[in-house]
Amino acid sequence: MTTAVPESLRQEVLQANLAIPQVGLATLTWGNVSGVDRDAGVFVIKPSGVPYADLTLDHLVTVRLHDGAVVDGDLRPSTDTETHRCLYLAFPSIGGITHTHSTHAVAFAQARRDIPVLGTTHADTFNGPVPVTRDLTKEECAKDYEYNTGHVIVDLLDGQDEKAVEVPAALVAGHGPFTWGSDARKSLEHAIICEAVADIALHTMSLSPTTPPPRHLLERHYTRKHGPDAYYGNPGPVMP
Amino acid sequence: MTTAVPESLRQEVLQANLAIPQVGLATLTWGNVSGVDRDAGVFVIKPSGVPYADLTLDHLVTVRLHDGAVVDGDLRPSTDTETHRCLYLAFPSIGGITHTHSTHAVAFAQARRDIPVLGTTHADTFNGPVPVTRDLTKEECAKDYEYNTGHVIVDLLDGQDEKAVEVPAALVAGHGPFTWGSDARKSLEHAIICEAVADIALHTMSLSPTTPPPRHLLERHYTRKHGPDAYYGNPGPVMP
Amino acid sequence: MTTAVPESLRQEVLQANLAIPQVGLATLTWGNVSGVDRDAGVFVIKPSGVPYADLTLDHLVTVRLHDGAVVDGDLRPSTDTETHRCLYLAFPSIGGITHTHSTHAVAFAQARRDIPVLGTTHADTFNGPVPVTRDLTKEECAKDYEYNTGHVIVDLLDGQDEKAVEVPAALVAGHGPFTWGSDARKSLEHAIICEAVADIALHTMSLSPTTPPPRHLLERHYTRKHGPDAYYGNPGPVMP
Amino acid sequence: MTTAVPESLRQEVLQANLAIPQVGLATLTWGNVSGVDRDAGVFVIKPSGVPYADLTLDHLVTVRLHDGAVVDGDLRPSTDTETHRCLYLAFPSIGGITHTHSTHAVAFAQARRDIPVLGTTHADTFNGPVPVTRDLTKEECAKDYEYNTGHVIVDLLDGQDEKAVEVPAALVAGHGPFTWGSDARKSLEHAIICEAVADIALHTMSLSPTTPPPRHLLERHYTRKHGPDAYYGNPGPVMP
Repeated sequence: MTTAVPESLRQEVLQANLAIPQVGLATLTWGNVSGVDRDAGVFVIKPSGVPYADLTLDHLVTVRLHDGAVVDGDLRPSTDTETHRCLYLAFPSIGGITHTHSTHAVAFAQARRDIPVLGTTHADTFNGPVPVTRDLTKEECAKDYEYNTGHVIVDLLDGQDEKAVEVPAALVAGHGPFTWGSDARKSLEHAIICEAVADIALHTMSLSPTTPPPRHLLERHYTRKHGPDAYYGNPGPVMP
Repeated sequence: MTTAVPESLRQEVLQANLAIPQVGLATLTWGNVSGVDRDAGVFVIKPSGVPYADLTLDHLVTVRLHDGAVVDGDLRPSTDTETHRCLYLAFPSIGGITHTHSTHAVAFAQARRDIPVLGTTHADTFNGPVPVTRDLTKEECAKDYEYNTGHVIVDLLDGQDEKAVEVPAALVAGHGPFTWGSDARKSLEHAIICEAVADIALHTMSLSPTTPPPRHLLERHYTRKHGPDAYYGNPGPVMP
Repeated sequence: MTTAVPESLRQEVLQANLAIPQVGLATLTWGNVSGVDRDAGVFVIKPSGVPYADLTLDHLVTVRLHDGAVVDGDLRPSTDTETHRCLYLAFPSIGGITHTHSTHAVAFAQARRDIPVLGTTHADTFNGPVPVTRDLTKEECAKDYEYNTGHVIVDLLDGQDEKAVEVPAALVAGHGPFTWGSDARKSLEHAIICEAVADIALHTMSLSPTTPPPRHLLERHYTRKHGPDAYYGNPGPVMP
Repeated sequence: MTTAVPESLRQEVLQANLAIPQVGLATLTWGNVSGVDRDAGVFVIKPSGVPYADLTLDHLVTVRLHDGAVVDGDLRPSTDTETHRCLYLAFPSIGGITHTHSTHAVAFAQARRDIPVLGTTHADTFNGPVPVTRDLTKEECAKDYEYNTGHVIVDLLDGQDEKAVEVPAALVAGHGPFTWGSDARKSLEHAIICEAVADIALHTMSLSPTTPPPRHLLERHYTRKHGPDAYYGNPGPVMP
């Protein structure tokens, strides 16, 4: 197994981390993005506690998937590294992961409520509510806490990769959102959308909506962007 | 019929699309503006899924009004193109259309509630509530979905052009706002105002207002900006 | 009577108008500031409907206090000019006036509720609630509407200049805030504060506060910034 | 006792004050940061009422800890100087203090409610609720008001330095937040966090959370960032 990571992956992880404060998802250093190279058996992640303004390619840390060992980088990786590792191991379709403490998504996580599907903005990306995990037990907090934070997400999705594809986001109870995607960039995009739909949902709920939108409307929006009949977009990146 | 579109229209459509993120109405690529050339029988619209930061004049797509065929441009037009086309065909006074997923207007659309007229800020532009459509039926979602999204707006206004002039905005139930105007620029201005009045309305409603403002106050504000006795403004553009 | 206005006044009015969008108080062209030269018997005000981005010294309009005639400038003055004139005539202490449609202050105006004194942030500037006017009658809307908009504020303060000094702000019912001060700059500062305290008040009210803050705390804050025993600040401008 | 303050302290206090508006915590001139040099027996603080845009190193004021005398600087120090002095005298661990009128923290102060611990974002920094003081009495407001504003915080913490370390923030009833830390920079970081958790808490409370997060989760987060077993971060500053 080689640990040489393609420069393109490192650049993508750097750019995605630098975008977190630019898109308004982070206070201070709260938030991190990683990207995986499954052939090399490693992922690249932000170091712990380094301000985005100072972050350079040299600060990134490369971590081995199977045991979490740091194989490249001088700094300590994000404290959330083991959560990322757990998710990569459980869900083969995941290529990148983003964790933030964005305001409205965290509010749902703290209230232990799913972000409900209230319209097409949500259904364009998430084929169902963004679900919230159970609480971690005392034992799960005492030992391997960060790995177990990933584990409650795996539990929530019954370990099924297809569920991780249908709704590429989850809220850890009392903590906040983790989102993922085919690569680091896509996981960040899902973090942006998760926060946006949480914000809109809170406003919608303050208006006391009566009936949910019809299922056929939501399905139409999801399928026009996903799956074999998708017809949204043009080739090229959709990076914020 | 010629499809040569004046450069000025293309420039206006480009600038209006670029303004969407600048005025805070868009997350990612969510939002599009078009402008019509009725003599040429075409309209110009943003391509689908292209980031605003990358958008240039060359990306714009020209679409034929009577059948929706792309007559100029290398990219796929916005997925909402057929909605724009339906509205242009139904309402002869419309020269430009803007669609966004702006937070507060979408909240009203998701709650299926009109944006009520609660003060002069609203009445300065909209001569009545910003209305919300009925839900699309299963059949309307299954076939020609985007065209039908325009159709429920046409239904809402009883197909009357004068209604489209009096209140140049509507909320598609469970989806979001569409606004229009005499040209692309004006449709964007109405999108900005629609979001602003939705925001203010949500705050007003949280204060439990008792009686609505008197009709004579609202009428005064609408008529001082519109119709033969208007006396607001000076010649020149009001582009954000 | 001469209408030659000192360059310094024109510069101050220009800068205060340009600051409106910079401090986040304006959507589009909604908002205007004026400053008065009582010796010359005129005031200088923003033209109607001109975008802030285009506004230059040459666009400003000079209006005669006693009859509202335009004595300098090529453009039509703000539609709110007569409201400004009414307030200048009624309250001799006023040197500048600002009108905006800022979100949270307008919400209180639309709900026809005073902005209550909930803490020292409010009491530092306003020695009492920011009051809301009665509705304008049908007759007041039909004729001299803008002048009458000033008149309901005069009514609200019983025409007493000392009340205008103690609380340099009022909300016109169903419309929005007007603020004033010793000069244009100060009136803008009060507009900023009026919006800030309205925002904080809305959040405070959502937390269901039980008892109001003690009067002696509020008085202390008002008097440390105002009157003979004031000890806040240092010489020099406090322009945003 | 010498009053020569190290240039590094003055630079840090300047930068922290300049950061207040950059991180969105201040309206106008509302907010100030100080840093203490306990060996010299003095602290450095922002002058009163000077706009952040104009603030330079030369404006900073040096104040003697034991009696509040100005020992360096031409301007009057912040009106809140005596509050800072009281806190420095009561709590030996405090190296820097920040006071702001940030929107959401002030809302809790005005509602006289603690900011509750609703999740890990809060527990990462504050080992308990951010508490609100009692009201100041009429006598405390009449004489030595600013010093007494510090005194009610000292009362709230029973004068115990360890409490000031565990939760480096308090809300003065009807007024707003004071935060502190090992130095000026850290106190500003706590002001940013105090506002962020107040904002998230308000949204969480609007979702009517039922049970609080388990204590073992919150403790885990606090201890991974604080104390002998902390493992968050890397060497180097975390300045916004």
